This record gives sequence, structure tokens and C-alpha cells, in this order.
Amino acid sequence: MNKLFRSLMDAQSARKIFLDAAKPIESIESLPIELADNRVLADDVVSETDVPHYSRSAMDGYAVKADDTMSASPSSPVMLMLTDGDIIPNTCSSVHTGSPIPRGADAVVMVEDSRIINATVEITTQVHPGKNVGEIGEDVAAGETILKAGHRLRPGDLAVLASMGIRDIEVFHKPLIAIIPTGEEVVPRGIPLEPGQVWETNSLMTASYVTRIGGIPRINDIVTDDPKLICEAIQANSDANMLIICGGTSVGKRDHVPAVIKEIGELPVHGIAISPGKPTALGIVNKKPILCMPGYPVAGFIALLAFGKDMIKKIGHIPLTQENILKLPLSEKITSRQGYETYVRVRIKDNSIVEPVMTSGAGILSSVAKADGYVVVPPNIEGYEVGTLVDVVII
Amino acid sequence: MNKLFRSLMDAQSARKIFLDAAKPIESIESLPIELADNRVLADDVVSETDVPHYSRSAMDGYAVKADDTMSASPSSPVMLMLTDGDIIPNTCSSVHTGSPIPRGADAVVMVEDSRIINATVEITTQVHPGKNVGEIGEDVAAGETILKAGHRLRPGDLAVLASMGIRDIEVFHKPLIAIIPTGEEVVPRGIPLEPGQVWETNSLMTASYVTRIGGIPRINDIVTDDPKLICEAIQANSDANMLIICGGTSVGKRDHVPAVIKEIGELPVHGIAISPGKPTALGIVNKKPILCMPGYPVAGFIALLAFGKDMIKKIGHIPLTQENILKLPLSEKITSRQGYETYVRVRIKDNSIVEPVMTSGAGILSSVAKADGYVVVPPNIEGYEVGTLVDVVII
Repeated sequence: MNKLFRSLMDAQSARKIFLDAAKPIESIESLPIELADNRVLADDVVSETDVPHYSRSAMDGYAVKADDTMSASPSSPVMLMLTDGDIIPNTCSSVHTGSPIPRGADAVVMVEDSRIINATVEITTQVHPGKNVGEIGEDVAAGETILKAGHRLRPGDLAVLASMGIRDIEVFHKPLIAIIPTGEEVVPRGIPLEPGQVWETNSLMTASYVTRIGGIPRINDIVTDDPKLICEAIQANSDANMLIICGGTSVGKRDHVPAVIKEIGELPVHGIAISPGKPTALGIVNKKPILCMPGYPVAGFIALLAFGKDMIKKIGHIPLTQENILKLPLSEKITSRQGYETYVRVRIKDNSIVEPVMTSGAGILSSVAKADGYVVVPPNIEGYEVGTLVDVVII
Repeated sequence: MNKLFRSLMDAQSARKIFLDAAKPIESIESLPIELADNRVLADDVVSETDVPHYSRSAMDGYAVKADDTMSASPSSPVMLMLTDGDIIPNTCSSVHTGSPIPRGADAVVMVEDSRIINATVEITTQVHPGKNVGEIGEDVAAGETILKAGHRLRPGDLAVLASMGIRDIEVFHKPLIAIIPTGEEVVPRGIPLEPGQVWETNSLMTASYVTRIGGIPRINDIVTDDPKLICEAIQANSDANMLIICGGTSVGKRDHVPAVIKEIGELPVHGIAISPGKPTALGIVNKKPILCMPGYPVAGFIALLAFGKDMIKKIGHIPLTQENILKLPLSEKITSRQGYETYVRVRIKDNSIVEPVMTSGAGILSSVAKADGYVVVPPNIEGYEVGTLVDVVII
């Protein structure tokens, strides 16, 4: 099957070349914080204000001069006069959580440690200065760097920004990913099929993943297997940060994509020792990376997850977080393709055991629906025996 | 600090009561598959068609009668005549991957195992019937159940639905979650602050999480600490699948939410042995669950993740998948509150070690921005020593 590829690149080398071709986006936009969840900060966030901006009570209770509580205890309480004004010796005032500390007070006695009798409060515990008082800037100090450029915003971060009075925030643009489905046998969904035709599905799967990863997909019309039209489609998407071409990337008579790219740019990778996904290629045209996904849907799916995903993240400055992985034992032997990094679709049964999804090839798209994840078998290993603990990457 | 709560419920018991109060949604909607990623199927999906709907070649090559290739080998090839019509003995026709198999053929010889000489093809290998032929329905058979009710759709599933000719799909409605911020000290963002006032941040954090979890947030105007207004806000949101009230849930003078709920419904939980988050409560009014989150932002954050998240998922039929957890050693001792399920915010350093984020309390919202995740210390444990391998739940 390799005869028609001059040689295959190993998956690790290919991964590095793919990633090197992805250039982090430089353009930024300003967004209301309400719309900024999951977006990536373009700049450090330095607070211009103190939070809180006033000295506040951390408890419901009474603001006091700490000195007045010296030696107070349940058996020997101190009596303080209630006041609504500034605190002078032997007075106190009622505060609740978040209240400003009145002038003259330097501590708060919790309501549990007090008893009110008319206009007098019995204090049954001693407090030191600062007790139950939140100082100005104790949460965020003016001038403090709270979040760094490159941080991907989470709901709690948005609340912190809001607490600092920030309304709009500068984030990197989302990567625009142009998706170009190709193939003369591929027809738009909804049109009745003739024998030899299939509905276009790769662009839908790819676009949905692009959205999940954090990019903006732009799906192009289907391009038939014609070098001129493929070339035009590539040029028409030169504003995108990355292109993904589905199909036409192998070495058959109708596979024009690699030749077209060579004509107008570079083709640093074509043919990778992964299974499925061997015909995957990388093009670079007008400095933009082009992921050429095999048209066979499962092979395309693997190419997208094995190479495309981290490229999109790098372009969007999205941190490369660890995959969601479960370590579970195999219910059956997995055999893999010697010399190939092999992606085996698997199902998890009873949350406890991993079973391969049996299929006859990369054309069997339903195997993806039947899978909970995949196990990657490195090229130097022939497979895994029953009972081996394997890492399942959840899809 | 517990004196004012009659008793605290343990976290596990509370979690069960919260979850029992969440009722899975019954209403469904029909969506184009292009908009259905991450949505939950309301019904089993049974295919009405075979995929492929015709017998197809799995390779580029030549469609043949397998009988004709009997004994073919590189040293003793078989010669077949090229034809464009049906395959009769000693003829073959050119096919590519996905081509319909012409009538009379029952196998495909790969192009690598052939050589073309004018109108004759030299076949250098023997194929058995069915070789490199994809039968009708080999991917999806008509009548086959491809996905089950309750499955949350992924990009690959959408492609499978598309390949079956499905254009629209029935999914459960997303849970509508009404969020009601309360507190007389809380003011809308953008309005200048007086001493004693803070900007409203809890509803933003909560709404962003609700969206992430798979619900639809509806943020209400801030309600001041007035029982009548709180009651009206609850009643005004009776169309929601769940309510989340931020603040006013403790036992202070201004904490009216529990009493209001008791008046018009039930309050099965009030006061939980978690830290932070002790004043968390559960109300049920008009059969709708109300998560009462403490107003202190970190406590509210923990209440949302510890109780609210799984409730929203249950309402939306969203599978309770495992959290994203990293197991890493502690760089410092963690101390926890004896008898409380304690949530310690932590930072991960160098992808290898876990360090607690030091703060002075549940009012320090910035501790959330500084944290990568949290470690849960069970109530019967006093903390963890340096070097202990802990589970970090990534936030």
C-alpha cells in the first residue's frame, strides 16, 4: 500500500513540522467581559484600583477599638455603648459582612461573641487590631498583575475582572479556519444520491471541532477534483489563518491537492506513518498552513485530532492543555500496524474496561459514533495484550 | 461560627438531596444537525437507509471477477480486457475509491497489483470474492440503532447523522437557569461605588458556568435584601428549570432568602459542612429547585461546582462525565477544617507540583483567578502532608 508514497514521515517528526507551520495570531479585539469566557488575554491585566476600595467588615458583628476588648471573656465581659458615629473609646457600632469599618474602629467582634442589652453591647471575647477587618486592597491591590497575557479566561476570572471595574478586555482574535471539502463523488447534503455519490460530511465534523477547539470555521462550497478550482479555492481563502482541505490528498488519479500546493507553495509533509491517516499532508501557501485531510472520514478525523487541533490552538494562543485521558484495562487484544502510529477507536464498558471498536477500514464513519475515545499505539509496538492498562483519549 | 446554624448537613448527604431535587427536562426541540453539537438526543437514532447505498470500491484499482484472478502472481500475471460496461469473464474496469462496483464484478484488484498495457490490464495477485469491496450497508445498515437517547452529540456523530441523510434531529431543550443576584450592598457594574458597595460579579461567573455546563442562563436584575422583592423574583422565574439565588442565604439580619423560601415552599437543606460554602441552601418552590449560593464569591463558586453543576447536567440529561483531574504531589502541607469537606484552591507549578493559593477567606475572589484547580479534603481528614499525591480538579 505504500508503493505509491515515495516514503512516509514518522508521526513525531510530522507533528513538529505541522506545529512549526502554525503562527500565533497577532490581531486583537476588545470585548465586554460578559462575552469573554474562554478567550485568550492579549495583555497582562494590571489592576488600577484596590479591591475592596474601603476597609470592610469580614463578619456580622460590632466594630470596636481592639484596645477596649482587652481581657474580655465570657465570665468577664466588657460593656460598650452603641453609636452610629465614629468609634471613640468604650463605644462600638453594628456592622455586617461587607460594611465599611467606621472611623476610629480597628477590629470587629463577631455577633456570636456579643450580647446586646438596650443601647449597650456585652463583648465576651478579646480581639486584636485588624481582627475580622478586610483591609483596602486585600483582595486585589492597585498595580498588581492579576492575570497574564496568554491566559485563557474562565468564569471566575471574569468575576475578578468585574470586581476590579474592568468592563472591556483585549483578547486575541479567534483563528479563522477555512474548510474546503473536495471530491467529485461528494454532493451537498439534501440532494438525492446517485450510485457512486456520498453526502458531504467532513466539513461538518471539521467545523464542529474547530468551534470546540476555539476557532471560527468557514465552510466553503464543495470543490470538484479539478486542479484549477482547487487552486482558486485556496487563493480565495488567503485571509484565513489556516486552511483545511478535505480529500484529494492521496496519490490516486483524482488526488490533485498535493500537486496544486507544490505549484503555488510548499508541501513539507505528504504521507505520514499513521493509521488511519497515511495520506495526510501539510501545505504552506502565502505563509498560511494548509492541513490536507484524507477524504476517508475516519482518516480525516484522526488527522484533525493528531495534527490540526494543536495547530489551531497555537494560532489562537490557546494553552495546549492535557487531553482528557482515562487509564483502563483492555478487554481484548489490540493489534496495530507495525511501523505506524496507530489510532484504535475504543468503547468503554461499565466505566471499567476498554474494548476496541471493530471495523473494516477508514471508510467506516459509524465507528466514530460507536467509540468513546481512542488508544494510540506507538509505531515500535505491535499492539497491546488483554488486560494492559491503556490511556484512552476521550473524544 | 456554627452557633447560628442549628446543625450542618454533611456534604455527601446534601449532594444527594440536591441531585434528587433536579428533575430531567422533558421538552424537546428539533434542530438542524449543523447546530446540534453538544446537544443531547431525545430519542434513539435508527437508520432508515443503508450507508453506503451502493456496493463500492474500497481502493483505486480494477473491478474484476475474483475467479478470473485465480493463480495470478507477479511471475504469472493474468491478462484482462478493459471495459466500460458490465464485467464478463476476462474483463475488468477501472475504479477508484468510492466508485460503484460494476455489474458482474465481485472484487477489486489494487492499482499497485496491476500494470496497464494499452487496453489490457496485467493482474499480478489473486483476489478472493469481496476483496476491497464495500458492501451495501457495511457502514450503517438500514434499521440499525446508531445512537441512543441520552447520548450527547459530538462532531463525529454529526457526520454519521449526515451520512445517513438525517437533516434535523430531536434533542432535549437546554435547561433554563434563572440567576438572581441579591444584596443591598451590590450594585450594577459600571455604576461608581460608594464605601460599603461592591459591583455585582456572582451572576456573571454563574452565567458563564451555566453556559459551559450546557444550560441557558437568565440573569435577573439585582434584588435588594427585602423579603417581598425576593419572593417576587422567585415567582417571576417559575418558568425556569432551576433557580440560583446569589447571596442572602446565611443567618444574618439581612439574610432573608431561606425564610422566604420556607414561606412559599420547602427548604430541605440549609447549612452544609463544606468550607468555604457553609451557608449554601436548597429550596424547592413550585417543584423547581433553588440553589442558594453564599454571596461571598469564593463560597458561591464552590457551591456552584460542588452542587449546582451536576444538578444542571441532570436536568439537561447531560452525562455526568468525570472531571478533568491531575494527580500531582503537594509542595506544601494543606490544612483543612476538621469535620468539613474542604475545597482548597491550588496552583500547578511547572506542570509537576501543586501549591495551595494562600488567602484569608472566602471573600478573596482573586484567589480563584490565581488557582488552576482545587483539591477536596474529606471531612474526616485533617489535611495532607507535603509530597502527598492529590487529585487536582481543573477549573
